[in-house]
Amino acid sequence: MSKKQSTKTKQPLKGIKVIDLTRVLAGPYTTMVLADLGAEVIKVEMPGVGDDARHFGPFIEDKSGYFFSINRGKESMTLNLKKPEAVKILKKMIIDADIVVENYRPGTTKKLGIDYDELKKVNPKIIYAACSGFGHSGPYSNFPAYDMIVQAMGGLMSITGNPDGPPVRVGSSIGDITAALFTVIGIMTALFNRQKTGEGAFIDVAMLDSQIAILENAIVRYIVSGESPKPLGTRHPSITPFQAFSTKDSHIIVAIGNDKLWVKFCKAIDREALLEMPEFETNDLRTEHLEQLIPLLDDIMNEKSTEQWIEIFDSLQIPSSTINDIEKVFTHPQVLARNMIIDAKDKDFGTMKMAGNPIKMNILKDEKHKKPAPDLGEDTERILKSLGYSTKEIKRLRKEKVI
Amino acid sequence: MSKKQSTKTKQPLKGIKVIDLTRVLAGPYTTMVLADLGAEVIKVEMPGVGDDARHFGPFIEDKSGYFFSINRGKESMTLNLKKPEAVKILKKMIIDADIVVENYRPGTTKKLGIDYDELKKVNPKIIYAACSGFGHSGPYSNFPAYDMIVQAMGGLMSITGNPDGPPVRVGSSIGDITAALFTVIGIMTALFNRQKTGEGAFIDVAMLDSQIAILENAIVRYIVSGESPKPLGTRHPSITPFQAFSTKDSHIIVAIGNDKLWVKFCKAIDREALLEMPEFETNDLRTEHLEQLIPLLDDIMNEKSTEQWIEIFDSLQIPSSTINDIEKVFTHPQVLARNMIIDAKDKDFGTMKMAGNPIKMNILKDEKHKKPAPDLGEDTERILKSLGYSTKEIKRLRKEKVI
Repeated sequence: MSKKQSTKTKQPLKGIKVIDLTRVLAGPYTTMVLADLGAEVIKVEMPGVGDDARHFGPFIEDKSGYFFSINRGKESMTLNLKKPEAVKILKKMIIDADIVVENYRPGTTKKLGIDYDELKKVNPKIIYAACSGFGHSGPYSNFPAYDMIVQAMGGLMSITGNPDGPPVRVGSSIGDITAALFTVIGIMTALFNRQKTGEGAFIDVAMLDSQIAILENAIVRYIVSGESPKPLGTRHPSITPFQAFSTKDSHIIVAIGNDKLWVKFCKAIDREALLEMPEFETNDLRTEHLEQLIPLLDDIMNEKSTEQWIEIFDSLQIPSSTINDIEKVFTHPQVLARNMIIDAKDKDFGTMKMAGNPIKMNILKDEKHKKPAPDLGEDTERILKSLGYSTKEIKRLRKEKVI
Repeated sequence: MSKKQSTKTKQPLKGIKVIDLTRVLAGPYTTMVLADLGAEVIKVEMPGVGDDARHFGPFIEDKSGYFFSINRGKESMTLNLKKPEAVKILKKMIIDADIVVENYRPGTTKKLGIDYDELKKVNPKIIYAACSGFGHSGPYSNFPAYDMIVQAMGGLMSITGNPDGPPVRVGSSIGDITAALFTVIGIMTALFNRQKTGEGAFIDVAMLDSQIAILENAIVRYIVSGESPKPLGTRHPSITPFQAFSTKDSHIIVAIGNDKLWVKFCKAIDREALLEMPEFETNDLRTEHLEQLIPLLDDIMNEKSTEQWIEIFDSLQIPSSTINDIEKVFTHPQVLARNMIIDAKDKDFGTMKMAGNPIKMNILKDEKHKKPAPDLGEDTERILKSLGYSTKEIKRLRKEKVI
C-alpha cells in the first residue's frame, strides 16, 4: 500500500490489494463491497470453470447475469490451485497484497497449502478473512452449508411466515449477505488495527453465527417468556397497529410506532371515536387488545384503495407504504434519487442494471456507472507479466493447465 | 486516540471514543458492534426518558430486556439537547471523540445545532455517521420510517412468503440491522481513511438503500425476464430440490446445490432410479421439471421422521437441516461451540442471555460475558467531572433539567 493517499480520489481503499479466492455469494459479496470502496480485487478462479456462479441463471447471451451483478469492478485471473506451480504464483501475489478472502469449507485451504499459517510466512501483515457456513471451529465446522440451511438452523425461518402456515425462507440470501457484511467489518477493523500495530489478522466469520446475531428481539422474547416466538405474518410482536392490511385493491403497510402517531392515525382514518376507548389508549393496551382492534381496522382499511390511503397518510407523515414489487422499486423516486439502481456495461451483452452501494460518504465517490464484472481469466496474462513471467512461460503454464 | 495501541489487549478499537446519539435499533446496533470491537461508547440520552427502547417490552423487573440486549458494554449520560447548555457540553465531549453516530430523522441535528457542519468546527477530524430511514437526500428524506416500511417499500416483502399467500415480514428487523452493518462498514472505512489522511468524514446510510442492496438475484431475475419475481415459500428460484419438505413428523430443509449432490441424494433416499431419468439429470432440468419432481419427493420425505432423515443426510454430508425454533437454537452444539449465546449481568435482574459477536478474529478477544447495558444516566456525573464540572455545577445542571 502506498504510504500517502489523498482522499481527493474519493476511493478510501485505493491502493489496497485484495486476493479474492471466493465463489458463489458470501465471499463475492464481501469483495464487491471492498471493490465499491476502492480496493483492487483480483478474483482467482479455476481455469475453464471459474466461480460456480458463472453457471447460475438467469443468463444474458450465455453469461450469468447473477455472476455479473455481484462481481462488478473486479479483475479475474485463472489458477488451478491443485497444481504446486499455481500455489507458487499465488504466494508471489500475496507478497504485496493486503487482504485474502476465501469462502471454502474449513480445511480446504490447508489441504491446498494456502491457509493463514502458510500465507503469513510469505507476508506476515496479510489479513486473511475466511467466511464459511459454520466457522473454523465447533462440531459442524466441516459440514456443507447453504443460505437456506442457516436460515433454518439459525432460527430465522421459525419466526418468518404466517401463523400456522408453511415455512417461509427470506426471499433473498440473507444468510450469505449478513455473513459478508460481518466479514467486511472484520476486514476493515483488521486494516485499521494493522495501521496502528503493523500486525496481520485471521478473521473467521460463519453464516450460522451471523444468523444468530440478527435474531433481534426473538431471543429476548424467548428468554423472558420461556417460549419460542412464532411467525407473525407481517405483525410486530409488541407494537400495534404495525402490520399489513388489505385495502379495496391490494395491501398497505401501516406502522403506528407510538401513541402520538395513534392519535394522528385515528384522525386520518376519520375514527376519532377510537381515541375515546381506554382499551386502545397506549401501545401496550392496543397490543393486549389486538384481537378486538385489528378486525375493526381491517374493515376501515378496506374502504379505500391503497393509493387513496397513502395520499392521506403521507400528507400527515404517518408511516405507511405500498408493498412494492421489484418493478416498482426500479422506478421509486427515492431509490432513484439515492442512486441505488446503477449499471455496468459488458462488452458482450451491453448494459446491466444492479443495486448500488448503500454506503454514502463524502470521502467516497458515489458511482452511477461501475466497471463490469471480468470475463474468466481476462487479467491473467497482465498479472503474470507484472510478476515477471514471460510470454513463453505463460504459454507453458497454460499448456500445463496451471492457468 | 492514543498514538500506539498494542494488540495484546485484543480490542482493536480500544482508545476509540464514540458519542452515541442513537435510539431504538439501527443506531444502537451500530454502536453495539463498535463496542464489541473495543470502542468506548457513550450513549447520550434525554433526561428522565432515555432511548425509546428502554420502554419496549419484554420487561424484566421493570427494565426493558430488549434495550438491554442491544446496549451491552455502553456508558450512559443524560443531556437534554434542546437546551443550549447541553449542546455546549456535547461539543466539549466532541473535542476528543473519534466518532458520532445518530439515527435522527434528517434535519433534526441541524435544528439542535449539532449537525456535521457544526461538530466539525469543534473537531475537524470527527467521523459523523447518520443512519436514517431514507437518507439525507431525495424526496422521501424527511419521511418517518420503520423497519417494516422499508421491508415493504424496498421490495423484500414482495419476494418473501408463500405463493398467493398473504404478505410476510422477515421475522427480525432486517431493515434496521443491515443498515446498521453498512453504517459500521462506513465508519471503519472512514477511520482507516483518517489514519492515512487526517480527514474526518460524513457518512449517510439509509435503511431503504440497504434493503435494495440485499435484494440479490431478485434484481437480475427482474431485468432478464421483465417480470417482478414472486414469493416462493422456501423454494430457491433456480436450484432444485432446494426447499422445505414435510416429513412424517415435521419439516426438513434439503439443499441440493449441484449435480454431484443430486447423485448422493438419490442414493440417500434409496431412489437411484431417479438418476436414470433424463429430465432430472441437471439442475436446470430439475428446475424446469419441478412440478413433476417435487410431488415425487414430497411422498418420499413423508416416509420418515425429520430426525431419521437428518441422520441419513448428515452421514453423507448432504446439506439438510431441521427448522429450529429459538429454544433449539439455544442448545444447538454449533451455536454453543461458537460462543454465539453470551450473557451480561445486570445489578437488578441478574444474568441476561443474548446473541454473541459473529466477528471472530485473532486480534479480538471473544467474550463469553459482556459488560451490562447502562442504567439511564449512570455515567453522567463521572463524565461531567472529567470535563471539569464541579459537584455544585452538576447539581445546577440537574436542577435546570440540562442533564
